[in-house]
Amino acid sequence: MASRPTAPQVHIQRWQSGVWAEAPDAVATEEPLQLMLDGKDLSVVMRTPGDDIALALGLLFAEGVIRSRDDIGSIEISAEAHEDSGVVRVNASLVESNRIDVRLRGAPRRRQERSMLSSSACGVCGAVMIEDLRRDLSPLADGPRVDPALLAPMVDRLRSAQGVFEKTGGLHAAGLFDVAGVPLAVREDIGRHNAVDKLVGGLLLDGGLPASQCVLVVSGRAGYEIVQKSITAGIPVLAAVGAPSSLAVSLAREFNQTLVGFLRGDRFNVYAAPSRLQTA
Amino acid sequence: MASRPTAPQVHIQRWQSGVWAEAPDAVATEEPLQLMLDGKDLSVVMRTPGDDIALALGLLFAEGVIRSRDDIGSIEISAEAHEDSGVVRVNASLVESNRIDVRLRGAPRRRQERSMLSSSACGVCGAVMIEDLRRDLSPLADGPRVDPALLAPMVDRLRSAQGVFEKTGGLHAAGLFDVAGVPLAVREDIGRHNAVDKLVGGLLLDGGLPASQCVLVVSGRAGYEIVQKSITAGIPVLAAVGAPSSLAVSLAREFNQTLVGFLRGDRFNVYAAPSRLQTA
Repeated sequence: MASRPTAPQVHIQRWQSGVWAEAPDAVATEEPLQLMLDGKDLSVVMRTPGDDIALALGLLFAEGVIRSRDDIGSIEISAEAHEDSGVVRVNASLVESNRIDVRLRGAPRRRQERSMLSSSACGVCGAVMIEDLRRDLSPLADGPRVDPALLAPMVDRLRSAQGVFEKTGGLHAAGLFDVAGVPLAVREDIGRHNAVDKLVGGLLLDGGLPASQCVLVVSGRAGYEIVQKSITAGIPVLAAVGAPSSLAVSLAREFNQTLVGFLRGDRFNVYAAPSRLQTA
Repeated sequence: MASRPTAPQVHIQRWQSGVWAEAPDAVATEEPLQLMLDGKDLSVVMRTPGDDIALALGLLFAEGVIRSRDDIGSIEISAEAHEDSGVVRVNASLVESNRIDVRLRGAPRRRQERSMLSSSACGVCGAVMIEDLRRDLSPLADGPRVDPALLAPMVDRLRSAQGVFEKTGGLHAAGLFDVAGVPLAVREDIGRHNAVDKLVGGLLLDGGLPASQCVLVVSGRAGYEIVQKSITAGIPVLAAVGAPSSLAVSLAREFNQTLVGFLRGDRFNVYAAPSRLQTA
């Protein structure tokens, strides 16, 4: 039942020590799954497709909605319609729609409450579906140009701005820089999405939005939500120390945001809108 | 306005190459923040305290609820009552309650929808507050004993069970082992919480809960939700390659779960319930 996560190939620009190269690269698949309970929308989970039934049941179990397999009446699924665990049936209306509907045998063990508990990395809780988010965002204007040799020193400055403890790996950091590489603000949090929210919220308070002449550097990976938050803030260049997701790449390309990943030492990959970094 | 995140000291057991030592250690602070909009509960964010106003505004901006500072009527806050950004006032009823209430000048720019978008790392969306979660969990029984020398090989097995791409850093892994170090299941996802949900959901389907004779190894950090999910599944030993959070340590200690962090090479730290690893 455990299907192997796929890693789609994308075409990227690679920069190392001042030299550009083109190459294919694999990114981790990130896609939304609409989780429904008894036919009603419950939440949308950003996940790597595969094992969607186990994911849905694990989530409902962790939240106390179900306590055992006996609580499940049936499961209707689209994304993995080939799965068969005895309680699964294919609902034609769900096929190809990336949804899973868990029908309980009785009432939920625990009522879903109005107050949602979002994780430290849960930044778009409360937003509506992906398509709506896309309708709300405008593509970023071309420019500014950023010298690619400035990106690596930004990571060094981000690290030196962090406290001693944070270097031990417990906190994520997000740093905002101007196009000359001067740090404007650094925020830290146990959640990488929170660090970006703190930065953007500070800009909003200070009248700094849209941050159309800025580079955002994040210590972790770049998923869909980091890209969405930074595009919403008008930030034209996003650089992550870690890997981007497939959906992050798609969104950055659609909205003309320069997306840099694996920014480590004197090298990085560009997954979207490379022209801002190309001075030639 | 940017306050430095704190890193509380905890007393831990350190294991290296078969030798135990006791030491103080610093962990990143993780605490829930209740975000309210116009006096109504909106969501609970797990975050590192500090810059709570910017965090709340950044979240509301990312979700399209506010578009500029002009949309904010007032902010009532407890956690950082000393903050002053012009629109902040202290509400005595919120003091010490870890809540922030953003009052809009007009209607929300975008209505909060019933369908919540949870991130890949957002596993407890839909659950009620922390205190309720605590009421639902029972302390784990003592035992089983696990040879501490088996933990490092579990990480090696987790890595070798991952695909080639996953080693590039795009996906998180969660692996379940028996107390002899034999791998029972490995799941991968772009969200580390999802990987755990997939494992636990699979156990639920297969009749494997509670997993009271198992060790869970995760490739990332151990926050509150990973600990909560694994305790709910009855898993007595949780070992993370990365750092634990303050709340994860508190929860593991309260519910007698053995919590291992920084499991790297031939060493690790034990933050809670070390007796399961101590054979002497």
